[in-house]
Amino acid sequence: MNIMSPPPRKLGRIHVPAVTLAHGGGGKAMKDLIDDVFVSAFATDTPRALEDQARFDLAALAAHGDRLAFTTDSFVVDPLFFPGGDIGKLAVFGTVNDLAVGGAKPLYLSCAVVIEEGLKIEELRRVAQSMAAAARRAGVTIVTGDTKVVQRGACDKLFITTTGVGVIPAGVELAIGGIRPGDGILVNGLLGDHGAAILAARGDLALETEIESDCAPLHGLIDAVLKAAPATRTIRDATRGGIATVLNEMAEASGVAIEIDEAATPLREEVRGFCEILGLDPLYLANEGKIVLAVPPAEIQAALAAMRAHPLGACAMLVGHAHAGEQGRVTIQTAFGGKRIVDMLVGEQLPRIC
Amino acid sequence: MNIMSPPPRKLGRIHVPAVTLAHGGGGKAMKDLIDDVFVSAFATDTPRALEDQARFDLAALAAHGDRLAFTTDSFVVDPLFFPGGDIGKLAVFGTVNDLAVGGAKPLYLSCAVVIEEGLKIEELRRVAQSMAAAARRAGVTIVTGDTKVVQRGACDKLFITTTGVGVIPAGVELAIGGIRPGDGILVNGLLGDHGAAILAARGDLALETEIESDCAPLHGLIDAVLKAAPATRTIRDATRGGIATVLNEMAEASGVAIEIDEAATPLREEVRGFCEILGLDPLYLANEGKIVLAVPPAEIQAALAAMRAHPLGACAMLVGHAHAGEQGRVTIQTAFGGKRIVDMLVGEQLPRIC
Repeated sequence: MNIMSPPPRKLGRIHVPAVTLAHGGGGKAMKDLIDDVFVSAFATDTPRALEDQARFDLAALAAHGDRLAFTTDSFVVDPLFFPGGDIGKLAVFGTVNDLAVGGAKPLYLSCAVVIEEGLKIEELRRVAQSMAAAARRAGVTIVTGDTKVVQRGACDKLFITTTGVGVIPAGVELAIGGIRPGDGILVNGLLGDHGAAILAARGDLALETEIESDCAPLHGLIDAVLKAAPATRTIRDATRGGIATVLNEMAEASGVAIEIDEAATPLREEVRGFCEILGLDPLYLANEGKIVLAVPPAEIQAALAAMRAHPLGACAMLVGHAHAGEQGRVTIQTAFGGKRIVDMLVGEQLPRIC
Repeated sequence: MNIMSPPPRKLGRIHVPAVTLAHGGGGKAMKDLIDDVFVSAFATDTPRALEDQARFDLAALAAHGDRLAFTTDSFVVDPLFFPGGDIGKLAVFGTVNDLAVGGAKPLYLSCAVVIEEGLKIEELRRVAQSMAAAARRAGVTIVTGDTKVVQRGACDKLFITTTGVGVIPAGVELAIGGIRPGDGILVNGLLGDHGAAILAARGDLALETEIESDCAPLHGLIDAVLKAAPATRTIRDATRGGIATVLNEMAEASGVAIEIDEAATPLREEVRGFCEILGLDPLYLANEGKIVLAVPPAEIQAALAAMRAHPLGACAMLVGHAHAGEQGRVTIQTAFGGKRIVDMLVGEQLPRIC
């Protein structure tokens, strides 16, 4: 036997129903948990096993573009499973989208989990399999990870932190400070589904809805937009804090005012009703598959057409414009003909939405 | 005013004593928390503010080597502050070391925090400042991050996930499967300090000790060793699970047996006593500033000399050798002349040690 090649990996199996503190000790139980739950789910996607440290050839990365993009997010959503998704899918697509909105091609993810003692192995397995399926769909590989277990009561079931690496093609220059008066403000579809779905799934509202999270990987859609409208100024995903927060960040960073038109803001009838009952403003509801774009006037129609031709942009709309009004001010033209300020959210609308 | 350049950043200030759910909402309160606590701590280190997505020139990365290294770790240590360190220092040095043991030059870190509602802003500030100081000492930059807040009881005070990017110089080839019979097994100093310090700091043992965590950045030491002993087979940091776990992983991956000598294993007298009282085996105690190296016979002395010339390797020792015995078997020659098997830890010795 060639001692340079490691012996074939014996995958450990777990025969207990729930995670115990032993699974976080760094020893054999942890290795078995990682092998059984994570390696077996992720390894179908990739020839490489999960490594302590992943390594990539820099020359191969440079074939995709000239800049490395790097972004991280922790996911603490409650409940773990909800209509349209689960924490694993969210953790993969969330970071894929954070890469994509900067114009990067998403390539590799790391995955660090903090598990509460007592979490059912079966639930953890479902989450890992969902992550694997999401990574396949998004064309990224989960290459490295970490597992910690904390005692009962020291965390709520499961938190996942994903960090992503991607490459930005030469010539792609998206910058939140680049919006100019006259630019169109576009969204790729119906707003607020994720926030409404999570809130309904918590079950303490006794509201029955059919609303599903819009959780989806947006790099394909963004690719299509950037091909059709290469002068696009900036793209942001409207997650926590909704499009209201993104619009405020855009207006502030670019020193412009932004006005949107309520009548042009795409909203599902159920979400509108849901918000009315609960007194919520749908502009602040979280999305997990929606982007806000600022596009110069000459390319607005091309960007809209490209989005509408993509399955994740069928309901794309031009919702407003940047203008040379008070810097950082966002307003909405209401359906009744009035106008009101859309401020940055000061407090918290919905905790643990992602 | 040039509308292409964003207006000067107004740093928000926080006037409440503790973190609230509003600080995790994605809105103004969160921005103020991030500005006040994290940006103000990290920004002294770096001309760039913390970005949603950090970007690096691939050509500049390639000046350091030919492969990108990528690694992640969550830190859930309890208590947050302990003799010799805190969760922030640990989170920076832990990921710096995970990069360094693969031979990479550590460059950039991301930092994702999950905060329990009610954590004192002052404690968070201390942690952020400790991270900034640790990053300065290790020569890395914290370039991007994420903040989540969960309700009281949904996590224990603070968890931090750091993910690191580094570059491996051309020609550096460390692989855990590369150990051959005859190779020396070296460590850079006294074992078990971190585990003993944390356990004592929990205060439920009523043991008074002077032991401090050995938490330190090891890339400088590793650099020195690789210069002196370029044929070094592999390096691992002996964190959770101690050197016993690392030795088992090395023996298994390389298909060799490893025998260490108890008399040559460097241990602080207080740690030895501490372990005797508690019935712990110091070989399984966590370290945060210790590496285990496998070095071919011709370079053992050079590696030892290089470590001993470095402040973090003054107590370096040759603790044992690989041999052609039963594959994957680790044994220890005890001080009394006997021999016993050093197995992989099956359960959990100490939860939340890192």
